[in-house]
Amino acid sequence: MGEKEGFTITPWEVSGEIDYDELIVRFGTSKIDEKLLERIARYGPIHTMLKRGIFYSHRDFNRVLDEYEKGNPFYLYTGRGPSGNIHLGHLMPWIFTKYIQDTFDVPLYFQLTDDEKFLFKEGMTLEETKKYAYENMLDIIALGFDPKKTHIFLDTENIEKLYPIALKVAKKITFSTARAVFGFNNSNNIGTIFYTSMQAVPAFMVSEWEKKQVPCVIPCGIDQDPHFRVARDVAPGLGYPKPSLLHCKLFPSLSGDDKMSSSSPMSTIYTTDTPKQVKKKVGQAFTGGRVSVEEQRKLGGNPDICAVYQYNYYLFEEDDAKLKKMRDECVAGERLCGQCKMELTEKINRFLEGHQERREEARERIEEFLMKSVNCH
Amino acid sequence: MGEKEGFTITPWEVSGEIDYDELIVRFGTSKIDEKLLERIARYGPIHTMLKRGIFYSHRDFNRVLDEYEKGNPFYLYTGRGPSGNIHLGHLMPWIFTKYIQDTFDVPLYFQLTDDEKFLFKEGMTLEETKKYAYENMLDIIALGFDPKKTHIFLDTENIEKLYPIALKVAKKITFSTARAVFGFNNSNNIGTIFYTSMQAVPAFMVSEWEKKQVPCVIPCGIDQDPHFRVARDVAPGLGYPKPSLLHCKLFPSLSGDDKMSSSSPMSTIYTTDTPKQVKKKVGQAFTGGRVSVEEQRKLGGNPDICAVYQYNYYLFEEDDAKLKKMRDECVAGERLCGQCKMELTEKINRFLEGHQERREEARERIEEFLMKSVNCH
Repeated sequence: MGEKEGFTITPWEVSGEIDYDELIVRFGTSKIDEKLLERIARYGPIHTMLKRGIFYSHRDFNRVLDEYEKGNPFYLYTGRGPSGNIHLGHLMPWIFTKYIQDTFDVPLYFQLTDDEKFLFKEGMTLEETKKYAYENMLDIIALGFDPKKTHIFLDTENIEKLYPIALKVAKKITFSTARAVFGFNNSNNIGTIFYTSMQAVPAFMVSEWEKKQVPCVIPCGIDQDPHFRVARDVAPGLGYPKPSLLHCKLFPSLSGDDKMSSSSPMSTIYTTDTPKQVKKKVGQAFTGGRVSVEEQRKLGGNPDICAVYQYNYYLFEEDDAKLKKMRDECVAGERLCGQCKMELTEKINRFLEGHQERREEARERIEEFLMKSVNCH
Repeated sequence: MGEKEGFTITPWEVSGEIDYDELIVRFGTSKIDEKLLERIARYGPIHTMLKRGIFYSHRDFNRVLDEYEKGNPFYLYTGRGPSGNIHLGHLMPWIFTKYIQDTFDVPLYFQLTDDEKFLFKEGMTLEETKKYAYENMLDIIALGFDPKKTHIFLDTENIEKLYPIALKVAKKITFSTARAVFGFNNSNNIGTIFYTSMQAVPAFMVSEWEKKQVPCVIPCGIDQDPHFRVARDVAPGLGYPKPSLLHCKLFPSLSGDDKMSSSSPMSTIYTTDTPKQVKKKVGQAFTGGRVSVEEQRKLGGNPDICAVYQYNYYLFEEDDAKLKKMRDECVAGERLCGQCKMELTEKINRFLEGHQERREEARERIEEFLMKSVNCH
């Protein structure tokens, strides 16, 4: 982990321009190739995020499908560190997770790590991270997950189930390992050092509870891979199967950086933004346009560095033909940034209108989704 | 912490001959002096362990008594790491804890750290430490604690109440601090590094639950002081009162070493030992006797290095006059080791007979003592 030529990527920090192919080599993961896509295609249509290489890397998903074919189904695990509002970049892997759930008809365990965010965020209270957890839950539910197959849980509220497994994990991880993987130093608090054990638990808990090997698949940003590399390393010694991973690239920032930064609200669109806020943010987005209309007409724009184009590519234009047309027109100088921004604003606002409605309805539905817990006070 | 001239003392290791007065200086604690004993005497008789300087050091107990006098009572907290059977050395501070409870009529919270022992003991499972916790509980109950004022709990079974407070503690302790206090190195597992947070929780939890400053008093072996020094350091930042401590010297080993070693069964007497085992162990104990009866008659013995005399001093001869007589006779060569060993064997077996009976009766009484928990499965 850590810094190498060009870019840095850890679960807490991304800087520089990410070379995603290089990351596969650096992390030792596998590319999601044509053969794997063909295997997935047997169970349903191939998702746009797979076709476009947004979900582009994996660990052991072939092995999971081998088991699946033998009638040994897997379960999904994903999570969220509840330290603020949800933005579109958060939704992306969750939308994909729902696609995998629907395609393979498998359960999903959704971890809200209120303990993590408390430990890692200076000045944030446990009451605040818990409040955010319940707010963030509304966004998860609004995506349309099936409550019968989806189990959402907060770490602190389900700790009685999680802690014994976390202890087993923790006993297998030395400080050396944690430091090497996460870059800890002497000033890290001892909670942050322990924390990776908690993040590993959902990858093992179904096997623990059902007293048999139940494979776990974790869709996540490639930046989260280190947590689960540790989990994979300790799994055999604990008698659990190694979790499989499906990695996605990081959702683009409106300011043109590689990863959306939650700390700069103008570079990201929250699910609770108003149409006016969306319009303003998209209006100020970094594009691949030229300095003047004349130049743009003459030389064409550059969609590869354009945040507006990336938004379409990642989430808002699922129609490949339309996306190609947009790109071709831009490159040919036939399309100006204003038009793209207006169209994207409309698409986002249309999406958010429905999402915000479902999000409010979700307030009454939380109980349906909460993991049956030992919580009885 | 760690090694200095002559001896080493940490919560996990004691070696060399302990200079207890030097420890007061090294740790920065206060001697339990005549003035403090006079204050305690206002509430009841002075316990033999206080008179004899077995409980000999404290932190802030005067401040606790100031509050007590103003009508702000404290509570007691002590604990046990359940990794094996209970020996007489374990009982000693618990007997003293009961004396403080009875004298001041205060509640006691008794923590069984099944998580700690799992994390620190290679090859020990969580199931084993939990089993020991329930076995050890019988010894606690057998000492005659009042169930209405005594709340025993296992960490793993009450983690839902403990974890949020442990997180708050952990956030205040850096790896540097933990390493400096406990001597951790890179090969320590990350659970052991986090663990001190869990041990601090009972010192704060009553204040947390009652939403006011409730002083906590912790009677414990002086070797356990580092855990609570950390707890004391973080207390003000969390809005809790600093816990007060009452420190005792370490119970002697039958083999003449400073601290009983649980790993050498012949040097320690377990509460479950048979009369025959006790006779054998005391028979083989290290004494201050001479190489022959003639020498002993001529030169006298040395009670100060004698394990049999120390057993009487620490636990089995509460009558000061009788103890002095025993000592004088020994030094004068009027008393031989055989007599002392026979008398001690009888005293221990008489004690164990009653203890073992109450210990078996305790199996039916566990529920009365368990802390009202969130445990509902």
